[in-house]
This record gives sequence, structure tokens and C-alpha cells, in this order.
Amino acid sequence: MTKRTLIAALAVSAVLSIPALAQRTAPPAPAPVDAKVAALRDAALKDDVAYDIVEGLTTEVGARLAGTEGEARARVWAVAKLKALGFKNVRAEPYRMPVWVRGEERAEIVAPFPQKLALTALGNSGATPAEGLTAEVVVFPTYGDLVAAPAGSLTGKIAYVGNTMAPTQDGSSYGAAGAARFVGPALAASKGAAAIVIRSIGTDTNRLPHAGNTNFPAGTTAIPAAALSAPDATLIEAMAKRGKPIRMKLLLTPRHIGEQESGNVIAEVPGSDPKAGIVLIGGHLDSWDLATGAIDDASGVAITAAAAKRILDSGKRPRRTIRVVWWGSEEVGGFGGRDYAAKHGSERHVVAAESDFGADRVWRFETTLPDSAKPVADRLASALAPLGIVRGTAQAGDGADIAPIVALGVAGVDLNQSGLRYFDTHHTADDTLDRVDPEQLRQNVAAWTAMLAIVANAPEEIGPVQRAQKP
Amino acid sequence: MTKRTLIAALAVSAVLSIPALAQRTAPPAPAPVDAKVAALRDAALKDDVAYDIVEGLTTEVGARLAGTEGEARARVWAVAKLKALGFKNVRAEPYRMPVWVRGEERAEIVAPFPQKLALTALGNSGATPAEGLTAEVVVFPTYGDLVAAPAGSLTGKIAYVGNTMAPTQDGSSYGAAGAARFVGPALAASKGAAAIVIRSIGTDTNRLPHAGNTNFPAGTTAIPAAALSAPDATLIEAMAKRGKPIRMKLLLTPRHIGEQESGNVIAEVPGSDPKAGIVLIGGHLDSWDLATGAIDDASGVAITAAAAKRILDSGKRPRRTIRVVWWGSEEVGGFGGRDYAAKHGSERHVVAAESDFGADRVWRFETTLPDSAKPVADRLASALAPLGIVRGTAQAGDGADIAPIVALGVAGVDLNQSGLRYFDTHHTADDTLDRVDPEQLRQNVAAWTAMLAIVANAPEEIGPVQRAQKP
Repeated sequence: MTKRTLIAALAVSAVLSIPALAQRTAPPAPAPVDAKVAALRDAALKDDVAYDIVEGLTTEVGARLAGTEGEARARVWAVAKLKALGFKNVRAEPYRMPVWVRGEERAEIVAPFPQKLALTALGNSGATPAEGLTAEVVVFPTYGDLVAAPAGSLTGKIAYVGNTMAPTQDGSSYGAAGAARFVGPALAASKGAAAIVIRSIGTDTNRLPHAGNTNFPAGTTAIPAAALSAPDATLIEAMAKRGKPIRMKLLLTPRHIGEQESGNVIAEVPGSDPKAGIVLIGGHLDSWDLATGAIDDASGVAITAAAAKRILDSGKRPRRTIRVVWWGSEEVGGFGGRDYAAKHGSERHVVAAESDFGADRVWRFETTLPDSAKPVADRLASALAPLGIVRGTAQAGDGADIAPIVALGVAGVDLNQSGLRYFDTHHTADDTLDRVDPEQLRQNVAAWTAMLAIVANAPEEIGPVQRAQKP
Repeated sequence: MTKRTLIAALAVSAVLSIPALAQRTAPPAPAPVDAKVAALRDAALKDDVAYDIVEGLTTEVGARLAGTEGEARARVWAVAKLKALGFKNVRAEPYRMPVWVRGEERAEIVAPFPQKLALTALGNSGATPAEGLTAEVVVFPTYGDLVAAPAGSLTGKIAYVGNTMAPTQDGSSYGAAGAARFVGPALAASKGAAAIVIRSIGTDTNRLPHAGNTNFPAGTTAIPAAALSAPDATLIEAMAKRGKPIRMKLLLTPRHIGEQESGNVIAEVPGSDPKAGIVLIGGHLDSWDLATGAIDDASGVAITAAAAKRILDSGKRPRRTIRVVWWGSEEVGGFGGRDYAAKHGSERHVVAAESDFGADRVWRFETTLPDSAKPVADRLASALAPLGIVRGTAQAGDGADIAPIVALGVAGVDLNQSGLRYFDTHHTADDTLDRVDPEQLRQNVAAWTAMLAIVANAPEEIGPVQRAQKP
């Protein structure tokens, strides 16, 4: 903005805002920003450690589905990397969990217009017979239409559920659109469907389907369940408009391979005051199997570790121990988060924060801090504002891996990344290194560094919080 | 632009352009635009016929690799569609051509960092053994590096050729980047390579490889040859920087299935003056097999037919016959264009024009008209200018299918579409209906309608042209 334009804009703004101002009290003066915090934050805008971690994990390990050999290699890599970065108490903590693995996956429309389809099985999908399954497709334009289908009306048929998802900065459309994947397969099974295919839960129009877990409640038989790429879903809907019966041949051969080893990887920046509690941060080390998991969630483990390393290297021990956890098996049910809470829930955690929403710019922060620590949140607001980060008002503590710890009454801090691009590549073969914008990644590291510098050193008590129950 | 800004801009422009103007003569007055031509052109900006053709061909036929059952269904569909649109003399003209078909295709890095790769065989690729081929990868960052490799240096190895391609409005980067695909495999074979994988010839970063033909000269053994998606190519280059030997397992099982039937589909708008010659237009009906070929080239057949239909429905026979040809087997070697020229080359064609560069906005036109028909080109310039189309100076007659007719001395008219997005999806699984922008498609139809209205009715003789030899 030029100086002249700025003056003009300020003049207009002054005129326009007089009525609004008249109805409000003046805002409180912002909390001052500690010079050391500001210096750490600004230095982090030149960070290369986070990108190096994402590049290394995606190049030297790649896909790392929970409980598989890929995730095991990721743990070995992670322990070596975190030790090399100088963290203390670096170790893997293994546990066991049930594992589902993808098999062959092919589908085609056989009538009225033969065409091959691009799709991928959903996690926990059942298998078709080895020779495939051919059946009529019943087209439900929305999940609501599937809900409305009479019991038994799908017997022997393949349910198709359409569903469109708009990009949103806060990712809120995922919850709404996601029902078709989260619970659609079990619902279709309960109505007799032989299988279900859904429009991918995503915001792109690439020919790459979005994987992701679904769940069949105990006692329900898992039917074959898959997500079509958006263009394939559009194609089926276009065929359906012709009014002729649609028949699909579907082949999916995933299987459960029983309990396997998974694990969390832990590293620490030891604090100077053992009684002040632990600041718990991290992301998840596992990824879906279709890509190298750069966005989901190599970026999260990289951002949090890079920020912690800046505190480690700052020349002064933080008051509180910063514990970085790279959780295992988040994608397939949050086994790592639960194992961590089972083993460490009795230790005094004061704040928990997770990065699991890609690598785009942080635009908002939210906290659930007790009243005793309100000045901490005010200082966060001042320190994060220069990065373009606004203060939100919702309850913090998002993140599947920290949920079991947060449920114990630990305060949450969320640094919300923009979700506008996230669901273009989420759980697809496109989740590769090129999707990470190094400049936006650095802004994340700066935000996390400032947050850690404030929270880990806060003189205030950060005791347990009473949390409102989530709906 | 506001009025005030406009005045300021004009003032600046006047000052800046005085020296330039002083060195030029005033441009000639533009040729007037016939009111009927303008009316036809502007009505075409509301066209729905072209989109209907693209939607129908991609939904009801889909992929249509030359010489396969898909292309045969496309001919049946095309004949029915062109008859339904009211064209005359609609028929398929079959011929036979050799056919290569894709088989299985899988690849993975087995050392130093095991990872699966996304790739697709190039047309005419040889096959690996049924159990695959595992060999060391020799990384050539550019095609020039492959050229420089000593004879015999690749014996038993898999050559990797990197190659980046920038988007260009005129598509000129395709020729430069394309060498790795067009001739790279034969060159690698001549140096002893067991196989070759190249970075896809494309401008996107999606995890979808770009197919396309390669050629092995007679006497050369066809080695397995495939294109990696851009992120997979980047991954191999990142691994190569680690300095450890890279080993790849490659499985490709394409095969030649001998001579099969292909064919052109022809339709006409009969002219009133049989001696005035034929205006030949069209696109190609075949597509690559990975997608529904919306951009390449359902759009081309749709644009040209929709424009011709506007002349057909205009209430007045054009002076010259407009012949719409939907050529077969363009992608795999231009068999349709050669068959057409063999059967029809002795008829009097006066202009040939092909649409085979997607569906984005036409930004330039070029002609190769004889001096006798220079006023025709001037009238084209005037009629196309309101659509944002500028006049180019290069030799026209682009298009693999019209090349054999153009080589006989027929004048060419090119309506150049923007290539800025074209190579994002070219020959990939992403070439689907959603990539077609209906508004830009309509601008194409308007441009072609104006061109046909002028060229097919021009009173001038449009005799044979002497063509400069292409380099």
C-alpha cells in the first residue's frame, strides 16, 4: 500500500467507523511483547529445519500407514533425526494395534456406458469376492437421501452417495460433508447394501480419490466401501440423469492383518522447574498409504519440532519442559494418543497443542486457559498479531492425538492453519512435498516458536481447566 | 477501470508512445464486419451445442483409444449425433491401423528408500518380463545429459530423464520439453538401457502421469518406457542428491495387438457452389485411454461441429461446402489424417483448420492464404477482434490431422487457444469434463462461427498456396 493510498484508506475508515465506535468501549491496550519472544519469533521466519524434516521424512521414508513396516521405518528415522537435532530423552514408545491394509482396487461401470473408475477403499472396508462384485447402483445425491432410504431397500445393491464439500478457512465443512464417509458405509450396510461408493470427501476436482477411515459398529458386517474421485462421482451422476439402470463391477481386496506394532516417538527440551509441568506439542508420524504424507502430517511433526528446537537452541532453558511427541496411528483411530495418555496421563501436563492441519499459514489462535493464566493468552495475542494471526473465541484443544490428554483437564492452545487448500490433497496420492509452501511453513514455525516461548516460560500457574462438553 | 483512472492512463500512454509513433506509419483502417457475420458470432456466445457434445461423448463413451472398442463406440455415437444435429452426408470411413494397448504398470524404488511410484507406459513402450525388471537407475537431470551419455554406458540400467516444462500461451514449450518422450526412449535404447522412465511432459504437479506416444525406429528394439508423475520425478531427483545408488523395480506389460479397425467420421454443410471448393474443419475423435478425453479432443470435435451447425441453421446455404471431420487415431500417429488425405486429397479443398488444443479461449489467429484472398484475412481480423483475438504472423495449418491435406497446398487457418492450462491435464487421467470451462468453450464456438461465415462465403478465389518448408 502506498503512503497516499494508506492515508486515503485511513480517512475513509475513520468516517465509517465513527458510529460503530460510539457503541463500543475502547479496546484494552495490548499486552507488551517481550523482546526475546519477538526476536525468537522473527528469527523463525527464516527457519529451514521444518522444511528439512518434511523433505527428509517424505524422501527417505515416504508412506507410513499405521502398524506397517513404513511406519516402523518412520520411527527409526524419527529417533535418529530428533537425536541429531539435539533433543533430550529421545525414544520410541511402542504399542500394538489392529491393522487394516489395502489390496487391489478397481471399479468400472458396465452398463449403460462402460467406463473405468478411479476409486480407493476406505479404511476398514470389507472385501468383495476375489472375482469382484457386479450389482445395480442406487444413486443418492446426498447423505440425507441415504438416510431416507427405507430399510432393506438396498439389498444386493451398491449404494452411491454424492456429496460436495466447499473449501472453508476453518475446515468446518469437513464435519458436515464427512458423514457420508464416517457413518455412510455402516448405514448402507444396515439397509442391506452389498457395497457403497461415495464421492470423495475433498474440495478438488482431480482424478485422485480421498482415502480415510470408516467404521462399522460391533455386530455389523463390514461391506466393501470406497471413495470415488470427484470427476468419477460427477460421471456417475451424469449417467444417472439419463434414467437407465447403472451397473457397476467393483473389486476391493483389503484385509485385516491382526495386531501389529505401532508407536509414538518422544523428545524433550528439559525445563528448569520440574514442578511447573509439561507443555505437550506434536503431530502424527503415520500417514495414509497413497502418498508420502507431506501435508498430513509430516508438516505437523516438522513445525512443532522446529519450534521446540528454537527454544532448545535459545541459550536459556525454558521454565517448563517442552515435550514433542510424534504420535503413531492417528489416521486409523488415534491409538497413539490413547497410548500416550495411558502411559503419561498422570504426569503434570499444563498445555497441549497439536499441529495436524497442513502447512498453510496460521490465521487464528484459540486457547482454553484457566483464569489464572489469562495474561498468558493476552501475551500470545500480542506476539502472534504481527504474523497475521487473530484471536478466536472457541474452545481450544483440537487434535485427535491430544484429545485424551485434554480430556483430563489440560489446557489447550490451537494455532489454526488455513484450510482453504487442505482438503484438495487430504488423504490422496497428491499429498507430496510439492504441496508444502516453504514460506507458509516458516510462518507456522514462527507462530509455534512464539507460543512456546510464552507458554513454557510463563510465571503464572497454568492449572487444570474445566472443559465444556463438546456437543 | 474508472473514468478518472482511464484518463490518467491515457495521459501517461500518450507521453510514452510519442517516440514509438513517430517511427511508424498509421495502421490501415480495419475491414468492415458484415452484419450477418457479427450476428452469427455474437449468437454463438450463447452456444450450448458444443458443451452438449463434450458432455455426451465423455459421459456416454468415455475413453476411446485408437483402434479399440472404445473408439468404435465413439464412431457409432458420432454418426448418430451428427445426424441428429442435421448435418448431411454423415458417415464413418473405416481404415485399419496397428494398435498398442496398455497392460499392468507398477514401479517402486527398492533402494535406498523403498517407495511406490506413479507412472504410465508411453505408447509403443516395450514390456518388462512378467515378474518385472529390477535395475540401477541412472539419473539424467535433462535430455541433454542423456544425449551426452557415452554409447554402451547404460547397459542393463534404467535411464531416468528429468525435464521441466513451463506453461506457455502458445504451447511452444511442448516441443522443447517433449524430446525426452518423443525420442528419449529410442536414444536410451541405442545406448544399451534396459528401460527408461521420464518426468512427465506436463506443467502440473499432480500425482498423475502424462501418457503419449514414443517411437522406436525400425530395427530398434522397443524397451520399456514410461512417464512418472511430476512429484515422483522430483522424489527420484531428491533421492539422487543423497548420493546412494538407486534401484527400481519396474513392471510394464503393454502389447501390440496387430491391425485393428479405426476410422474417421464425416459430416457436411453442403455449399451452393460446387466449384468453390471445400472448407475442411474438425478435431480428433480418439483419446488417450486414461481419461474421457474432454480437453483432448472432445472439445475440438465439439467446437468445430457446433460452429458448422450455426452456419447450417443460419437459413442460407454457404457458398462453399463445410466438411466436418472427426478424425480417428490422431494420438497414436495420425492415421486418420493420412487416410482422409488418401481418400479425399483429389477433391478441391480451399481451407483446412483443426481444433486440437483444448477448450480455453482463442487468443490469436493465423492464416496461410494466397495473395488473392488477403481481404479474407483482413475480414477475419476485424470479425475476431471483439472476441479478444489478435492477428499472428506465423504460417498457419497446424494440426496433425490436417497436415497431409495442408501439405498438398491447401490454405490453413489456425485459431490458437491459450495453452496456459492445457498441459496440466494433457494425456492424464485428469482430462475430464470438469476441465472444460463452458464460457471459454462458447468463445471458441463464436470464433469458429465467424471464421466459417467469412471463409465459406468469401467471393474471392482461395487457390492453392505455396508453403514454406517447416524446419
